[in-house]
Amino acid sequence: MVAPLLELLSLLLILAVSPEPTIAAHSKPKPFRPLTPLRMQALLRRHGRSSSSQGSKLVAAAADGTAANPFTAHYFPQELDHFTFTPNASMVFYQKYLVNDTFWRRPTGAGGAAAGPLFVYTGNEGDIEWFATNTGFMFDIAPKFGALLVFIEHRFYGESIPFGNNSDNSAETMGYLTSTQALADFAILITSLKRNLSAEAAPVVVFGGSYGGMLASWFRLKYLHVAIGALASSAPILQFDYITPWNSFYDAISQDYKSESLNCFSVIKATWDVLDERGSDDKGLLELSKLFRACKTVKYADSIGDWLETAFTYTAMVDYPTPANFLENLPAYPVKEMCKIIDGFPANADILEKRPLMFCGWGWQACTEMIMPMTTSHESMFPPSTFSYDESSDACFQSNGVRPRPHWITTEYGGYRIDKVLKRFGSNIIFSNGMRDPWSRGGVLKNISSSIVALVTEKGAHHLDLRYATKDDPDWVVEQRRQEVEIIQGWIDQYHQDMA
Amino acid sequence: MVAPLLELLSLLLILAVSPEPTIAAHSKPKPFRPLTPLRMQALLRRHGRSSSSQGSKLVAAAADGTAANPFTAHYFPQELDHFTFTPNASMVFYQKYLVNDTFWRRPTGAGGAAAGPLFVYTGNEGDIEWFATNTGFMFDIAPKFGALLVFIEHRFYGESIPFGNNSDNSAETMGYLTSTQALADFAILITSLKRNLSAEAAPVVVFGGSYGGMLASWFRLKYLHVAIGALASSAPILQFDYITPWNSFYDAISQDYKSESLNCFSVIKATWDVLDERGSDDKGLLELSKLFRACKTVKYADSIGDWLETAFTYTAMVDYPTPANFLENLPAYPVKEMCKIIDGFPANADILEKRPLMFCGWGWQACTEMIMPMTTSHESMFPPSTFSYDESSDACFQSNGVRPRPHWITTEYGGYRIDKVLKRFGSNIIFSNGMRDPWSRGGVLKNISSSIVALVTEKGAHHLDLRYATKDDPDWVVEQRRQEVEIIQGWIDQYHQDMA
Repeated sequence: MVAPLLELLSLLLILAVSPEPTIAAHSKPKPFRPLTPLRMQALLRRHGRSSSSQGSKLVAAAADGTAANPFTAHYFPQELDHFTFTPNASMVFYQKYLVNDTFWRRPTGAGGAAAGPLFVYTGNEGDIEWFATNTGFMFDIAPKFGALLVFIEHRFYGESIPFGNNSDNSAETMGYLTSTQALADFAILITSLKRNLSAEAAPVVVFGGSYGGMLASWFRLKYLHVAIGALASSAPILQFDYITPWNSFYDAISQDYKSESLNCFSVIKATWDVLDERGSDDKGLLELSKLFRACKTVKYADSIGDWLETAFTYTAMVDYPTPANFLENLPAYPVKEMCKIIDGFPANADILEKRPLMFCGWGWQACTEMIMPMTTSHESMFPPSTFSYDESSDACFQSNGVRPRPHWITTEYGGYRIDKVLKRFGSNIIFSNGMRDPWSRGGVLKNISSSIVALVTEKGAHHLDLRYATKDDPDWVVEQRRQEVEIIQGWIDQYHQDMA
Repeated sequence: MVAPLLELLSLLLILAVSPEPTIAAHSKPKPFRPLTPLRMQALLRRHGRSSSSQGSKLVAAAADGTAANPFTAHYFPQELDHFTFTPNASMVFYQKYLVNDTFWRRPTGAGGAAAGPLFVYTGNEGDIEWFATNTGFMFDIAPKFGALLVFIEHRFYGESIPFGNNSDNSAETMGYLTSTQALADFAILITSLKRNLSAEAAPVVVFGGSYGGMLASWFRLKYLHVAIGALASSAPILQFDYITPWNSFYDAISQDYKSESLNCFSVIKATWDVLDERGSDDKGLLELSKLFRACKTVKYADSIGDWLETAFTYTAMVDYPTPANFLENLPAYPVKEMCKIIDGFPANADILEKRPLMFCGWGWQACTEMIMPMTTSHESMFPPSTFSYDESSDACFQSNGVRPRPHWITTEYGGYRIDKVLKRFGSNIIFSNGMRDPWSRGGVLKNISSSIVALVTEKGAHHLDLRYATKDDPDWVVEQRRQEVEIIQGWIDQYHQDMA
């Protein structure tokens, strides 16, 4: 029994290093457990894709081990706080960004009127090289558009760390990690870059996936004068406040597993009681620890359960139709694969999560702005859980010394009745979602206007459309990407017509 | 000769207390000289319109000494910094706002669907009671709309002073005085107020004049989900960077005077040399000082010139067609009146400006975000002047210990090619301007789309449309206000149709 279990767990281990937005706190107040950039970077280092030196340099981004699209790394002096003039505000940190100009149609006329567009990835919670490598769509379409590719790292991730080694993970330093500051970073960097390239008149389209997709859509809405359009892939901008039912996320995951195999669903659903039972005394915990060769004895069965939940969640998110390129060695349709394994043996499997206790950027964001309430319903395969703003606030205060502003995101960016609000305001946003991805439930799934549109694929997963095209892509992904290219081309054509 | 000169100067003295955006630094680096809220408040106190106690209370706002529209004053706990989670960020200050619910159609259905709209004035650089009193248009039209009137004070003005008596006018405290924080204040206060009134579904229209008009239009663009439309009167949102020719402001003033009397224009134009000549030695300065009964001897003729420039500028701004209600005892068409006096005697008149040296909110803003470059051309009646970003930055550092971010406003709010940018983005903004007002030159003077429109009156002055209607109003003001009401009614009707 141990062998197949280890096989499953090895799969889970791989899946669990995704740097995507993590799950909000559950019923019992407990620290958030997002994945840290450290873990991700460790993974990247193993593959020699990480870099740490300052200055401009050429980096080879190996995508799927097949293509080598070079980009140069640059560092932009960015002010710490764009919204105050307090003494710290003008402190400078160096924000990393990557550029690929292989396909760019350089400006020739005055003001760069003839230049190809800038396609800018609005970086999210992690090393920007990782996002660049995993956003092959931009490389794939750059030649057609003559586009300059720019990938901007989000402040406080990767190498773009204000205070650097002097950061003490307190509110004094981490307090400047907010989405609004990140958006202003993007606006300032893009404006400066265009000026330096004499390409002021070149149109800018922003791209992003997941939290990066949220940033891309918000950027189009808030910095309409900087970007002419946004492709926001798997952007759960409605996962806040009371907009989306709190149980929809875990219900969606449960649905993914149930659709593969009812037995798989039932086995997972029964796991939690087994874990509780086996972990109810020291003897059981010792057995579990030995079984999985844990370096220390597991103290609480809960920690195993949490870790399993995360693994099931990530597997659902990356339920891609093609093999293994989000991280590594991942089969096509991993939910199906996981269920195959699970269907082969009882589901009392578990392992100790060895989580570094260091501070983590997304943990901070999830405890300040990014409060996404989630609960489980009786229909789900997850154990019952509730959510309380007060308990979540207390947990955050305990873990990070900061209290959330749980309603800030909807105040700053909106979300309620978004169809009415954007019906006659704004333009040029694609919200793409795959329904296999639980984050889709907090996304925009219906067209809002003629130019704010939703592209939904029933079988798609977490920002699948942003990945490199492969020969095995199903027709519906090919079609989705074709539509995206067509729509973006329309934005650019219209921009040039308007400017003529 | 002294008597008519004193008459003129008495007029100028009255005019010079306007709290409107002041003129940016000229050629020689010299401190900005905006009008301080203190001076304004002193004026208000004389008329018993100021208040200082905390809590909710009824205040009688005497408008023109004719109508008494009551509003209640309230104080909203507002966080200091919405864009970071640094330790100071969650400090609370009390933001004053005024409410008039006399005409409000209160909500009856669920979510306040049937409620009348909220008409919200986005307060600018001064005591909010002063703006409420001088925005009679909102009181005039409230009955027709069944509107709730709300006037929100801008942070760091009036009674809404973070740190209160502990403010040391340094960057530590004043650094939180920015337009972005002010807009977020408005969004948070409005959202909270609507919830408390069970009027979540009631539409919000924002109103503002001058800097308040800039805030109103930016609020509609940035907080599209909070306000359905904006009336931005005399809002020079294009007076930044290189968007508007730097000499247009003073050329516009010169044009105002020239249009009344070529002699008036020429006399003023000759004034500066006379001043320089007479102020070139101690004897001349002593004579000037005695002539105008200055309490101290004037040290530099420049200071007299500066003061006169300000007076000519403000007179042009408030060149209203009806008598004397922007401050007091002001005749209709004050430029004409001033020229009548000037045409009667030589123009070597001057007086010592007695300017309090205390810190002032607008002075801070003009040294941080609100950098509006202005120069004079040979066509103007003003002495030659240039503008330099570097010198302006040095002057600000010297006067306020802070350096400007001169390109921030256009990065954050846009402005370049605004017609193209907003052509297919955004809706429901009225930009109203009167061409007698020099600030009109930095305003939006042409329709951008079917719902982002410009209402321009050739004879209008600084946010004339926002004033109370009077029986003497010329037809063109009556017509302008009628159009504004019609357009706003259209927004509200459409909103209700969309929500149905």
